[in-house]
Amino acid sequence: MADNGITATSIASVSEANRSRIMRHLYRNGVCSRAQIAEALGLTPAAVTKITARLIETGVIRETGGMEGRKNRRSIGLELNIGSFHVVGVKFARSIVQIGLFDLAGTPLDVRELDKVTEDKIPATLAEIHRIVDAMLDADQSIVAVGMAVPGPYLKDSGRTAVVSSMQGWKRVNFLDEFAHAFRVPVFVEQDARAGALAQCLFDPVNAGADSLAYYLIGEGVGLGVVERGRIIDGHLGAATELGHVSVDVVNGLPCECGNVGCLERYCSATAIHRMIVEAGDLIDGADRLTHAQACRALFAKAADGDERATAIVRKAARYIAFGCVTIINMFNPERIVIGDIGAAAGPLLLDVVRETVDRHVLPELNESTVITLSSLPSDAALGGAAAVAIDRFLERPSAFLEPA
Amino acid sequence: MADNGITATSIASVSEANRSRIMRHLYRNGVCSRAQIAEALGLTPAAVTKITARLIETGVIRETGGMEGRKNRRSIGLELNIGSFHVVGVKFARSIVQIGLFDLAGTPLDVRELDKVTEDKIPATLAEIHRIVDAMLDADQSIVAVGMAVPGPYLKDSGRTAVVSSMQGWKRVNFLDEFAHAFRVPVFVEQDARAGALAQCLFDPVNAGADSLAYYLIGEGVGLGVVERGRIIDGHLGAATELGHVSVDVVNGLPCECGNVGCLERYCSATAIHRMIVEAGDLIDGADRLTHAQACRALFAKAADGDERATAIVRKAARYIAFGCVTIINMFNPERIVIGDIGAAAGPLLLDVVRETVDRHVLPELNESTVITLSSLPSDAALGGAAAVAIDRFLERPSAFLEPA
Repeated sequence: MADNGITATSIASVSEANRSRIMRHLYRNGVCSRAQIAEALGLTPAAVTKITARLIETGVIRETGGMEGRKNRRSIGLELNIGSFHVVGVKFARSIVQIGLFDLAGTPLDVRELDKVTEDKIPATLAEIHRIVDAMLDADQSIVAVGMAVPGPYLKDSGRTAVVSSMQGWKRVNFLDEFAHAFRVPVFVEQDARAGALAQCLFDPVNAGADSLAYYLIGEGVGLGVVERGRIIDGHLGAATELGHVSVDVVNGLPCECGNVGCLERYCSATAIHRMIVEAGDLIDGADRLTHAQACRALFAKAADGDERATAIVRKAARYIAFGCVTIINMFNPERIVIGDIGAAAGPLLLDVVRETVDRHVLPELNESTVITLSSLPSDAALGGAAAVAIDRFLERPSAFLEPA
Repeated sequence: MADNGITATSIASVSEANRSRIMRHLYRNGVCSRAQIAEALGLTPAAVTKITARLIETGVIRETGGMEGRKNRRSIGLELNIGSFHVVGVKFARSIVQIGLFDLAGTPLDVRELDKVTEDKIPATLAEIHRIVDAMLDADQSIVAVGMAVPGPYLKDSGRTAVVSSMQGWKRVNFLDEFAHAFRVPVFVEQDARAGALAQCLFDPVNAGADSLAYYLIGEGVGLGVVERGRIIDGHLGAATELGHVSVDVVNGLPCECGNVGCLERYCSATAIHRMIVEAGDLIDGADRLTHAQACRALFAKAADGDERATAIVRKAARYIAFGCVTIINMFNPERIVIGDIGAAAGPLLLDVVRETVDRHVLPELNESTVITLSSLPSDAALGGAAAVAIDRFLERPSAFLEPA
């Protein structure tokens, strides 16, 4: 019940936990000597020598040339073998499926986007994912895991998403039945915004030290992933942090397919912004034929050029995005909030409105201690999130990947 | 980052973790044999024998007479020495301070309420708390810890509450400076609704097995405490789960002292309900001279007697309480929500409206998997919560209490 999180019950699990801590330390800090690792993690030099010997044997870490050590003595550096282990990330959005090959640093080595998915094409899409991932695994023996990011609410034990917006067809797919044992490597499935939160923690050094981080996804839907002291908040069924369905207006709010009224995503998702663009008539040519992402990008470009009507729509959406931040702060009090996905492309105009609104609506003590930024990861961060899910598991339980039973 | 929560780094911490697991197992299950403990916790019989021997030595557990064992063989039972260790709980509300002596089961042995606190009496109140707790500790050598429950948002590292409603004087009190080293036993301070969540997990057997629980406090303010997989969600500064300041209406909502508009507690706290009673004129005699709790109890009694105006007020408040449940489900997806404190006294009338509203506003999969109840702990549950904070620490790190450095 208390917060030390100790659940290890055997010496074997302590060894594995320390192995993982050393791997995470090298992941964050690059080249380190054994002495530096021992000092940073409070382990004895003997323990570090023993654990790293094993990791060197399996090839996951390697010795580098001499590095500057304490008192100017040369000492041997250790580093993770970032390029020698690969993962596959698969990102499911409503109409988009992307598959990418990544190294451990999250660098995309190969990214493919499947044909636009429609309800009737879901079975064919699934078959193609099997085919492509199998081919990747055959071609690259260094792949150790597959991570998948799916829209929330994702029910983690039953393997299904309780999708509430368009594309109900995905709801009938059981991701665990479909993929859990489909390949020669393990597969991990996570809700997309949580995957995005992991990507922020792993791939953006500025977030690496945060004790708690919220990734606020403004995409076709509105999503949230929260990592607190190294652990994802996921609730009983895995459907926690569904910010998109928190009401901002229980009195007069717009009805949502989830049953609630005034759901935040009805006001500031890319889908909602697209609707405002179409309602604005001639603001953007052929707006109703664009995808949500295309329409938003066209709007943001116009606003950046000083167009007043475009700016007004961005400001309106940003104000709702800001109220989402106010709720995130009151509910999760994270050290950092990172706004990402399609909405993040609105840039400083959006961030200024968010900051201004949050300044006025949050207690000063909490406001001052919360850093709000736009994601600085590449725009396909959600796909990177899928890779992050796999990489995180690899760093957490290295033995499971390096010494298969 | 992944969810196994292993942070133990030494064999000593594994021993302590297993000691704690055995104590928690006995706490929940009463009398158990060593064999039953070993089986339930996946420990070797030798490990259980060794750990329990130490715990018997320190007096925290004891052997009972023979019990029915496997294959009808008699075996010796073990049980926690519930009555031999006491804790003190101190509950701070806005105008009320209560101090109680409890056994490990949360049974109140002695409860005192201090004189009503006003802004100018805070220093005298603090002095009296010191005096009373010191006297309790002198009189009872079996007291092992003091737990305190304070209104949120409570900033855990700085030791202060960022109180937003009446009684700003409490904001100037640093609870850690004031109490952390004041007594011969350790003192633990927790936000009141989190303390309430711990009390629900520890003292109500119906909640003991829940993997996640939300305690939804409807008192002078609206509070929330969430325990997920054994850990309290508390955020960067300890100010997470401040449901009372989540807006239910960002468009036309009532302004709140926290800076936000439409804060939930403006609509359904005991304070808000009291306001509705006063505005109803002659509904309850002298309503404006009653405390919030007294006014609410009078209202609930009238509603239970079938008074239509009283019923309408309860239903109105209950609808907002329900929207709070909808937000709790979407944000934390807990297995159980327990509604407690003053509001819980409204009974089935309130619970029916809550269920009906939640049924309509939450996705079926999530709704079906969430149990919503009224607290069945005694009405001074918040004081019990203060005791629970101390008991939880005692169960988590027994050595810290039994073998002081």
